[in-house]
Amino acid sequence: MNTIGASLRLTIFGSSHGPGVGCVLDGVPAGIEIDRDDIQREVDLRRPSGALGTPRAEEDRVELLAGVMEGVTTGAPVVLFIANRDTDSSKYERFRVVPRPGHADLTQMKKYGDSVDLRGGGQFSGRMTAPMVAAGAVAKEMLRTIGVQIAAYTQRLGSIEDEEDRTLREARRQARENPVRAADPEIALSMINEIMEAKLDGDSVGGVVRCLAVGLPIGVGEPFFDSLEGELAKMMFAIPGVKGIEFGAGFRAASMRGSEHNDSFLVKDGEIHTVTNNAGGVLGGLSNGMPLDLRVAFKPTASIPKEQRSIDLERMEDTTIKVEGRHDPCIVPRAVIVVEAAVALVLADLCLRGDFIA
Amino acid sequence: MNTIGASLRLTIFGSSHGPGVGCVLDGVPAGIEIDRDDIQREVDLRRPSGALGTPRAEEDRVELLAGVMEGVTTGAPVVLFIANRDTDSSKYERFRVVPRPGHADLTQMKKYGDSVDLRGGGQFSGRMTAPMVAAGAVAKEMLRTIGVQIAAYTQRLGSIEDEEDRTLREARRQARENPVRAADPEIALSMINEIMEAKLDGDSVGGVVRCLAVGLPIGVGEPFFDSLEGELAKMMFAIPGVKGIEFGAGFRAASMRGSEHNDSFLVKDGEIHTVTNNAGGVLGGLSNGMPLDLRVAFKPTASIPKEQRSIDLERMEDTTIKVEGRHDPCIVPRAVIVVEAAVALVLADLCLRGDFIA
Amino acid sequence: MNTIGASLRLTIFGSSHGPGVGCVLDGVPAGIEIDRDDIQREVDLRRPSGALGTPRAEEDRVELLAGVMEGVTTGAPVVLFIANRDTDSSKYERFRVVPRPGHADLTQMKKYGDSVDLRGGGQFSGRMTAPMVAAGAVAKEMLRTIGVQIAAYTQRLGSIEDEEDRTLREARRQARENPVRAADPEIALSMINEIMEAKLDGDSVGGVVRCLAVGLPIGVGEPFFDSLEGELAKMMFAIPGVKGIEFGAGFRAASMRGSEHNDSFLVKDGEIHTVTNNAGGVLGGLSNGMPLDLRVAFKPTASIPKEQRSIDLERMEDTTIKVEGRHDPCIVPRAVIVVEAAVALVLADLCLRGDFIA
Amino acid sequence: MNTIGASLRLTIFGSSHGPGVGCVLDGVPAGIEIDRDDIQREVDLRRPSGALGTPRAEEDRVELLAGVMEGVTTGAPVVLFIANRDTDSSKYERFRVVPRPGHADLTQMKKYGDSVDLRGGGQFSGRMTAPMVAAGAVAKEMLRTIGVQIAAYTQRLGSIEDEEDRTLREARRQARENPVRAADPEIALSMINEIMEAKLDGDSVGGVVRCLAVGLPIGVGEPFFDSLEGELAKMMFAIPGVKGIEFGAGFRAASMRGSEHNDSFLVKDGEIHTVTNNAGGVLGGLSNGMPLDLRVAFKPTASIPKEQRSIDLERMEDTTIKVEGRHDPCIVPRAVIVVEAAVALVLADLCLRGDFIA
Repeated sequence: MNTIGASLRLTIFGSSHGPGVGCVLDGVPAGIEIDRDDIQREVDLRRPSGALGTPRAEEDRVELLAGVMEGVTTGAPVVLFIANRDTDSSKYERFRVVPRPGHADLTQMKKYGDSVDLRGGGQFSGRMTAPMVAAGAVAKEMLRTIGVQIAAYTQRLGSIEDEEDRTLREARRQARENPVRAADPEIALSMINEIMEAKLDGDSVGGVVRCLAVGLPIGVGEPFFDSLEGELAKMMFAIPGVKGIEFGAGFRAASMRGSEHNDSFLVKDGEIHTVTNNAGGVLGGLSNGMPLDLRVAFKPTASIPKEQRSIDLERMEDTTIKVEGRHDPCIVPRAVIVVEAAVALVLADLCLRGDFIA
Repeated sequence: MNTIGASLRLTIFGSSHGPGVGCVLDGVPAGIEIDRDDIQREVDLRRPSGALGTPRAEEDRVELLAGVMEGVTTGAPVVLFIANRDTDSSKYERFRVVPRPGHADLTQMKKYGDSVDLRGGGQFSGRMTAPMVAAGAVAKEMLRTIGVQIAAYTQRLGSIEDEEDRTLREARRQARENPVRAADPEIALSMINEIMEAKLDGDSVGGVVRCLAVGLPIGVGEPFFDSLEGELAKMMFAIPGVKGIEFGAGFRAASMRGSEHNDSFLVKDGEIHTVTNNAGGVLGGLSNGMPLDLRVAFKPTASIPKEQRSIDLERMEDTTIKVEGRHDPCIVPRAVIVVEAAVALVLADLCLRGDFIA
Repeated sequence: MNTIGASLRLTIFGSSHGPGVGCVLDGVPAGIEIDRDDIQREVDLRRPSGALGTPRAEEDRVELLAGVMEGVTTGAPVVLFIANRDTDSSKYERFRVVPRPGHADLTQMKKYGDSVDLRGGGQFSGRMTAPMVAAGAVAKEMLRTIGVQIAAYTQRLGSIEDEEDRTLREARRQARENPVRAADPEIALSMINEIMEAKLDGDSVGGVVRCLAVGLPIGVGEPFFDSLEGELAKMMFAIPGVKGIEFGAGFRAASMRGSEHNDSFLVKDGEIHTVTNNAGGVLGGLSNGMPLDLRVAFKPTASIPKEQRSIDLERMEDTTIKVEGRHDPCIVPRAVIVVEAAVALVLADLCLRGDFIA
Repeated sequence: MNTIGASLRLTIFGSSHGPGVGCVLDGVPAGIEIDRDDIQREVDLRRPSGALGTPRAEEDRVELLAGVMEGVTTGAPVVLFIANRDTDSSKYERFRVVPRPGHADLTQMKKYGDSVDLRGGGQFSGRMTAPMVAAGAVAKEMLRTIGVQIAAYTQRLGSIEDEEDRTLREARRQARENPVRAADPEIALSMINEIMEAKLDGDSVGGVVRCLAVGLPIGVGEPFFDSLEGELAKMMFAIPGVKGIEFGAGFRAASMRGSEHNDSFLVKDGEIHTVTNNAGGVLGGLSNGMPLDLRVAFKPTASIPKEQRSIDLERMEDTTIKVEGRHDPCIVPRAVIVVEAAVALVLADLCLRGDFIA
């Protein structure tokens, strides 16, 4: 359903072209300081960046409907709402007849019948990630109280890959300074170029977001099914466009030998470390004290102006479609803050469950 | 916790060296025919294969403790139990002092304190997948009633990769005929060789399991968080050793353009198909009628006889460890049936939730 | 937490003196017709009735924030919001020092610390039942599609008891015609009198709400724990002031013999009935085809102007308190529609779970 | 479904005439001492008492299948199993044709079809409470670590009522000393007499169990829906035969005035108390530090040898039935330990959720 989490439960609601989008975040302890402006800043990072994004100009103003009194949480559910303003639903009726390749138009109609709201993707819209980011900002405040920090950046964008093993510090410092959220200014330029080229071709590109988290206590995650990796993966696939996730060495681990992949322990300054971090900070589904390290693959935006083959459902015959609407040639830069939020929400939930957050 | 699923709920219990391992499967409709021998056959596929696997010789006899009367489910929870027999716990106490690299010994002790059962990995043991396979056999029976078929095979094993785009039919026919569960006899030989070499070196190898499912109705999966991909991913990361999952083009999608990645629709014989299946059978988190196609990355077995660096927790100083126990040089072949079971359990749950199974 | 239900999940949010109160109702099938005015009418029935109720004058205007497009549900979560307007928080700070007898001021402060929102009872306020009633109106629409009808009425108010075995039809016809929601006009007058007398004394009275539901299919309820009675009871105790619930003969059954209590079956016009309904329509936790019949006991309003003994928490010494605010001398009449809503929400959830609603 | 609880999750399985009954208790912290003999002693208290009970002679031997290593919990799910031995299913096939009044035979067949297991009530059998009692014994151990004590006793049995306001100490001392679990030896004799008379008449009697708990910290319970009362009520209605529950003054509160019902606070020896306990230890759904006080109404046993009216489902005509099997003329004495277990399970769950148990 539209709820995720056990001790910190997020419920997402709304649709792209309805009155708005929002969420309920239940389980936030009383006494957490919440500044609406901080939440707004995070949500603003999800907004499209000039020429690189959709021309849909949403103000995305976050309203605090419940759970906060005088800037502090009360222990009751926190409710955040973002009104929709710049909606243009004129183009969506056609997709009931000619479904867009790479979109869920057809599957949604099969599942929900004619009452389904296809406008802007309805409840499958990328716009549903706006309240996720807002909720993630609250989760980050919760994590801050125990010293957990999270940072994501664009590691790959189409053919451009950042091959450096960036630290959280680098990611934090750089990624918010450029519109593609790259961890390096040079690479940022190449990535911007990659997007512009795709846009000129009426096409789109995909990419990979890498996310790091440090400061996690040891033992975050719950066996057998609510593992750190499992909970993160489930949350991540709720983000529209995600097609893969891996931790540490991930798919590369498949071609490694045990002696190469195992992260050896060592003692340094009286503390236990591992020499490498092929595990990505997770062993047996539990955090092991090393940085959490995950990578998320995004497919290229499905909506492209370029002509594509599709079908006419009324006549049951082949046809073509150009998806004209207002779409991003690449959603990866906007997804970086969404991945951060998703990670924050899962970590905060599991930290509550493991009593790491009081 | 140790429960997963909404309409079909699986609870796993037991530990590697306790009285046994088992599961409760709640939500199985009344009237499903369950043959203990069929379940046993699936569980037997998880057992180690001669020289390729651990010498631990478990009979793994499945007992039906509840939920089935005269070979038919009653609607009450189905309970399956597999007694442990060939346990040898002598070697595990040492890991409380010198934790094994790549294992959760240390993280478990931090989380649970001294009462934790480390013998054989305790509740983090790969042995917990035996009841998953047994439960998966029940889920497969449920799916059979609506015509869904599942088949997995070893696509990569260390440096050996099967680069063909196998069909479910090929996977089904071949994978159970060779001990590495490859979809091709030639490739099987190379993979066997790869394992034997690693074993000779006192080392281990990882690999990739690919799983296909056909016959799924359109619309399986629930927004926003209980997507087909999200639920599958969460279940998959419960399998010890999994470090990544991807659907369809997966991580390759990150470097594709939209026009290349989008699966165009076409009408063939009055039915809607897509030309390609880069989406892996999932759009918007819902099954789209094309074959479900996912890949799961397994790390190499962490327990290796080769000497590794570790630490002595009592003296807080560096030391080395050789993990002598009885371990598989590669768990991937045994994991193939586990991946199938995991997919079956998730699909059966989501099919119940979507009312595709009565 | 603040969520209840499995297939139909209600999440309540807000507080008495914050921006407003509202709810998310997830699991409503696509295609249900929702008229905002119908919801408003139900919510209006919860408002205080002139001299009998609190002078707090809330308009309680229901806004539909999500899940409905052109008067029909889309399958996405339905979100309802009711802004608070006439709040007066001036009197609540004192209760942090001198807690009100019969209220949760003290227990809330112990649980949540100083950040708790005590204004108007915060998230423990009776005002939280307003969104429950709104959600109940949606649940009633769902139940209407399968012919289920619900009606509640005030069966006891202080010393006045309605001893007749009213039918649903009687309850429906009468209870909305008088301010105390009695099923008989004569009894209504006595009940009004009872309230007025208590009010003159600066005191309050309790009462009993009886609720009937007809048209339920046989088999609604899920073993072992999600029984029809268990799910109804849990929901009912969320209504502030409820202290007891019973089904059919209820507590009277304790002094009956089996031969007297068992409802004998008989065939009438080719249909199976029972001669009596001591079971209250539930056998083995499942609906049995007879009318659902339950009674809910409400304690008298805790807030009374009359002087009561309390304590001064700062000085840790005895003191007295008069709770002046704006309170109902009896909440039972307003609770009648809340009980109806609670029953509707549980029945709709269980009907979805049992596939009685498509 | 067959699972209840959030942080402490109980899953019940088995059926009256299958291989056995059992449960999984997930969420038990590591390090709790569990003595199989202690659990056995509790389960033995549920067994029938000589002439007062059913002649079905079950040994009810509890087996620990998982979660305990060397007498201490490991943090993994605790699994308890009780094999069925003395089953006699010969008499149950007839109930498929002539359903027993007061039983769920007919409703079960409607819900599950012909595959349902009616033998001994199947999964609706009172026998399902045996694993509840076993699990309750584990929950009691958890509660003991924070000083919570629970005791229940038979307060009413048919026409015999114990009108004294017993303390937990009295209930504990007396109730296990007599076969009807009365808190007073004299009353016990009258209750025994009441049962024997009903038995001679081929009939049965109902009763009321009162349960007290002391030592609960303040603030146990979770708003809005997981209130202390709501969670207890839901669990209680899972016990076969329960038809009502009330807390403190309960239904009597309905005819009280606020000034009479409110429990005034007072300071005694520097601690806060209330003068009365009409709230039964719960305010706003949270424990308030006073003893938890609840009453549960049980209907008379439905299975009676006396002739009753029923119907022949094949001929769809009226008939009569005498339920000969092996049944208790009164289940209340056996239910006392079940109520205790149910209360323990809910309290342990809510104490975990509120971090009152580490």
